[in-house]
Amino acid sequence: MSPTDHEIDHLPQTLGTALDQPTDDALQGLCASHAAPDLSDALEALPEELMQRFFQRLDIACTADIYAHLQPDHQSRVLKSLEEEHASRLIAALSYDDAASVIEGLKDDHAETLLEALPNDDQEALETLLGYPEESAGRLMTPEFASVQPDWSVAEAMDHLREQHELAETINTIFVITPDGELLGWVRLKELLLSSPTTTVRERMHTDVVSVAAEEDREEAAHRISHYDLDVLPVVDDNGHLLGIITVDDVMDVLRAETTEDFHRMAAVGDLVLSLRDASMQLLYRKRIGWLLILVAVNIFAGIAIGYYEAAIEAVVALVFFLPMVIATGGNAGAQAATLVVRSLAVNDIQLRDWWRLGGKEVLVSGALGVTLAAAIWISGNWLGDMQVANAIALGMFFVVIFGSMFGMLLPFALSRFGFDPAVASAPLITSVVDIVGILIYFAVAVAILGL
Amino acid sequence: MSPTDHEIDHLPQTLGTALDQPTDDALQGLCASHAAPDLSDALEALPEELMQRFFQRLDIACTADIYAHLQPDHQSRVLKSLEEEHASRLIAALSYDDAASVIEGLKDDHAETLLEALPNDDQEALETLLGYPEESAGRLMTPEFASVQPDWSVAEAMDHLREQHELAETINTIFVITPDGELLGWVRLKELLLSSPTTTVRERMHTDVVSVAAEEDREEAAHRISHYDLDVLPVVDDNGHLLGIITVDDVMDVLRAETTEDFHRMAAVGDLVLSLRDASMQLLYRKRIGWLLILVAVNIFAGIAIGYYEAAIEAVVALVFFLPMVIATGGNAGAQAATLVVRSLAVNDIQLRDWWRLGGKEVLVSGALGVTLAAAIWISGNWLGDMQVANAIALGMFFVVIFGSMFGMLLPFALSRFGFDPAVASAPLITSVVDIVGILIYFAVAVAILGL
Repeated sequence: MSPTDHEIDHLPQTLGTALDQPTDDALQGLCASHAAPDLSDALEALPEELMQRFFQRLDIACTADIYAHLQPDHQSRVLKSLEEEHASRLIAALSYDDAASVIEGLKDDHAETLLEALPNDDQEALETLLGYPEESAGRLMTPEFASVQPDWSVAEAMDHLREQHELAETINTIFVITPDGELLGWVRLKELLLSSPTTTVRERMHTDVVSVAAEEDREEAAHRISHYDLDVLPVVDDNGHLLGIITVDDVMDVLRAETTEDFHRMAAVGDLVLSLRDASMQLLYRKRIGWLLILVAVNIFAGIAIGYYEAAIEAVVALVFFLPMVIATGGNAGAQAATLVVRSLAVNDIQLRDWWRLGGKEVLVSGALGVTLAAAIWISGNWLGDMQVANAIALGMFFVVIFGSMFGMLLPFALSRFGFDPAVASAPLITSVVDIVGILIYFAVAVAILGL
Repeated sequence: MSPTDHEIDHLPQTLGTALDQPTDDALQGLCASHAAPDLSDALEALPEELMQRFFQRLDIACTADIYAHLQPDHQSRVLKSLEEEHASRLIAALSYDDAASVIEGLKDDHAETLLEALPNDDQEALETLLGYPEESAGRLMTPEFASVQPDWSVAEAMDHLREQHELAETINTIFVITPDGELLGWVRLKELLLSSPTTTVRERMHTDVVSVAAEEDREEAAHRISHYDLDVLPVVDDNGHLLGIITVDDVMDVLRAETTEDFHRMAAVGDLVLSLRDASMQLLYRKRIGWLLILVAVNIFAGIAIGYYEAAIEAVVALVFFLPMVIATGGNAGAQAATLVVRSLAVNDIQLRDWWRLGGKEVLVSGALGVTLAAAIWISGNWLGDMQVANAIALGMFFVVIFGSMFGMLLPFALSRFGFDPAVASAPLITSVVDIVGILIYFAVAVAILGL
């Protein structure tokens, strides 16, 4: 049965006690009775020194899978704490895609030493993977896949798979390739199983292959797996030769990381690869101060805009009372529009070329929002000030909401068009720009209506 | 090979042309040569009437899988356009989880009629699924799973699977149950395949089962599949009997929908289940106006706060120039902190009980941010105004940034603690609250320092 939440909550403590005992029996018992992802979470909640002792004391048969689930920075530090020979055996016990991502996180000289200590086969395979661009499909794949040839009989294919199964990460889907490695199709293990042994693989093969090129972005790989409901996606070179496979669990991690990146960008936070739990205060400061300073610089113009209308403010101080409400509302409407577009672009619900259709819709939607919000502020304006002022701020609200919405809707498209991540259109950035333009619109309307 | 982007972009046009021809040959050719998710996307880009004609003309063997990939609202409308007998055959051709989600989207009387037209088995199975709470694991599962008994030999198990394979959604992982259905363990198809035929299933069975109860939230199911890297998660009743399975592709859709909901909430947009592409203008207006009006009401207090300091503004108008910059920066810092917390809570990186640790960290991080930003505004204050004013606005900035950050960090925890979705702590909400409190802090500091 599933471990209870209570057991999992106390796992760090249980592990800590087991680590204090002179023999390894209690530790080995915990390894056998708990899932690797739970154990790695529990270890990360312990002091660094205890986590390292765990990996130093226990055998690789026990620890490899737990190690694979640690956060990247913990992986690096644990590896550094192990003796060279122990470290290289640990790396060799990981699947190639996991091993590549560990080595990627190491300092260059440490990575070099480790790679050289590995068996030749492993070293070559890892160097190939690490040769692909960061965040490419090639980096994400593992070269450990199950393949058969089209002219084999089902019996021959099954024999071959029995020999290969230890190497392959998954044999639920088996790829059919020519003797020199060109990808022709695929077949499910259960289809082979249900076929007569003398049938050829070719007769059972599906040829509607969805694949990804090794140089393509890993997000594209994730999109294809999710769009086509695949268990496993083949990765090919320019000549259609099968290089490796990407499995759905690798892709879930990628989607999660990319989504977190979008969330952070949309709140004007720099890319934070570490978890919030583990991020140091210095790191959090660095990831946040950059955009905050840029936005302060942008906001200087808001101050200048207000300064420009100093005379109007002195004449009708009440205008200032409603200023925050109007520019905040414009910014809020813009943040809504931007978020709708950014998310829809991220999940491929809309494309870049849809900008004019959505922009057209937004003219009408923002007009309706503007009218409603203008009415709301007109009522509060009448309550707090006089009718003339109420007219001025209501009309200002109307135009500021339309400007904010249109700006929020179109900025992500513009960013995307010029090669930037649309998620850079963060709520704070939009709010700041709408503040400046909103101040100018608001006072221009007020000056015109009140005849200042 | 993968269909090219060019082909997929022109698929709606190609489909439209094929629909205009008197015979179905061209349509059937397109069905055979393209993946169901691409065809359903293409159909959704066509006028409603053409989409319906497609499902009316073609056989269910062709259309069921395409239908399963349509958006919920399109599914309902297509179903309504079909004759009753055709509609019920289409529903019967879907997997139970897909069929349940289609029926869920129909009006009550239509759902009733459809269910009654189904074969008895299907009707019962669907009524059971629809009996579980919305957004529960039970709703997401399919009762079509492969199971074997522990005392069977591998040969018996394989024979049983050969008979069952048409029914089961996946047989890569096979569950081991007692004759009365209690879940004991699981075994991989490849493990059975590699075992001697006389071995018993019990000898090959794994007993570390991760499962979910049918009444639990579907997000919990998604979390377990992702945390434990599972292909398939068993769903059990209170007595540990196996009821159904949830597969990883179902969960990817759930994760995507839940993440989109978080994105929208964080931008103060109401829950939008439709895609942005298909949402009507009325719907978009309704989903956005609610929060905008609430925030206008909140912002009235910002106006009142400014009104309270009218005398100070009239004495030193320069204070108004820097007001937007200070309160915007406080709001931005708050939005950053809130987003970091909301996302970390959503991916289970942090728990509710971590609030004090993260809050403690935030005191220091926001202090450092406050000092830096105060220095930045002090410099611009000196440039635009005088030294005394610069001191006042810098100190105001310092306190407002600390308040904004702490508020943004703690609000999601507080919401979560009282049973609300932490994502309600949207950037617009935080900005609005920080505006009000920020105005009070800013003027209080200015009045004290400038002796107004």
